[in-house]
Amino acid sequence: MARAVVLLSGGMDSATTLALALRDGFECHALTIRYGQKNTRELECAALVARVLGAASHRFAEVDLAVPGASALTDLLIPVPRRGPDEPTGLGIPPTYVPARNAVLLCVALSYAEVLGALDLFLGINAVDFSGYPDCRPTFLEAFETMANLATRLGVEGRRFRVHAPLIRMSKSEIVRTALVLGVDLGLTLSCYDPGPGGRPCGACDACRIRARGFREAGVSDPALGGESERKA
Amino acid sequence: MARAVVLLSGGMDSATTLALALRDGFECHALTIRYGQKNTRELECAALVARVLGAASHRFAEVDLAVPGASALTDLLIPVPRRGPDEPTGLGIPPTYVPARNAVLLCVALSYAEVLGALDLFLGINAVDFSGYPDCRPTFLEAFETMANLATRLGVEGRRFRVHAPLIRMSKSEIVRTALVLGVDLGLTLSCYDPGPGGRPCGACDACRIRARGFREAGVSDPALGGESERKA
Repeated sequence: MARAVVLLSGGMDSATTLALALRDGFECHALTIRYGQKNTRELECAALVARVLGAASHRFAEVDLAVPGASALTDLLIPVPRRGPDEPTGLGIPPTYVPARNAVLLCVALSYAEVLGALDLFLGINAVDFSGYPDCRPTFLEAFETMANLATRLGVEGRRFRVHAPLIRMSKSEIVRTALVLGVDLGLTLSCYDPGPGGRPCGACDACRIRARGFREAGVSDPALGGESERKA
Repeated sequence: MARAVVLLSGGMDSATTLALALRDGFECHALTIRYGQKNTRELECAALVARVLGAASHRFAEVDLAVPGASALTDLLIPVPRRGPDEPTGLGIPPTYVPARNAVLLCVALSYAEVLGALDLFLGINAVDFSGYPDCRPTFLEAFETMANLATRLGVEGRRFRVHAPLIRMSKSEIVRTALVLGVDLGLTLSCYDPGPGGRPCGACDACRIRARGFREAGVSDPALGGESERKA
């Protein structure tokens, strides 16, 4: 049974990615990175998702990316943008971009994978319904793979690391449907960039709005919202 | 004055690299990564080197690479190999290899550089007198640059990150001579993988042996050793 390292944030996309990796027969070692995100509630979701879905192990690792001014996701002084449900998402790269975050997360996953002897890395990035982040594009992943195979002992020995991003070309509604087919309880996941007390999603950040549209287009209600009105929608 | 991020370990090579970046006119922001290394003495050396050489700032950042079994540099249960002064260095990649370390360090530096608006990254790797690490080769650096420019906002905006490794083709004795020409006090630096009490170099690990050969071939004594016999050598 081949081992894989699966980056798990606690959100819907990485949970679905873990379910796909498990379905494909990998022994999945989930890795959640504390990079200084203000939203620590998602870390609790990640631990729960790893256990419920059946990861072989789950590890937290620290990476300090919380340089002042870096991102709305790490700096308390930079607000997460909020918009009405039908307002368009802003153009360009938003303030929630964390500089080089996916490269850093993948590198830490690569190091961990090499220790485990795992050649397969999974992450839940998405290039369709996303926020305009540069490190969610297929060209970035290809360049990362090339770099990874030059940076490592296993790469030098002629083995090949592969980065899997099975959601990269899915719309958000396809991700919702995929999760449902695989039996993932999306009620365990949290996508909100800036949840309120008790982890309640704000409903107005880009992550909430993109998630809500995904559920709407899939024709199902979001179990994470929990209210009766949503359940009947 | 262009800004640069300089990875600073506390060793001789990164100190010389910082001196070269300063000589070339960069405003240098030194970055020292605590990745779980057993040798924390080198972190103190890094802080001293940054101050004495005149870095514009110095930052520590955490990255947790200390997975059990990862490396002799992070795991107390894996001994650092020691050899006699004239014994050949072992073939292949030694147990002091930390999986994907340089990729991780460069990624964290990249994230920091993007926040600072710095496009130039410096690191003190060396492909001549080194220990056989895969991530000390020019091909790795080229692949990293390509990846970095796809992973970041600045890259997408058409600006170009550059990775500078000015020592990469120097022998260890050339590095010693370069440091002396630039006025770097190598007595402030520590190369040993596993120093004894008070930070005294062991003299028998690969890092000590390669450093000693560098000084010997440069025809000067190592000020970090401090003994009268070495000074007269």
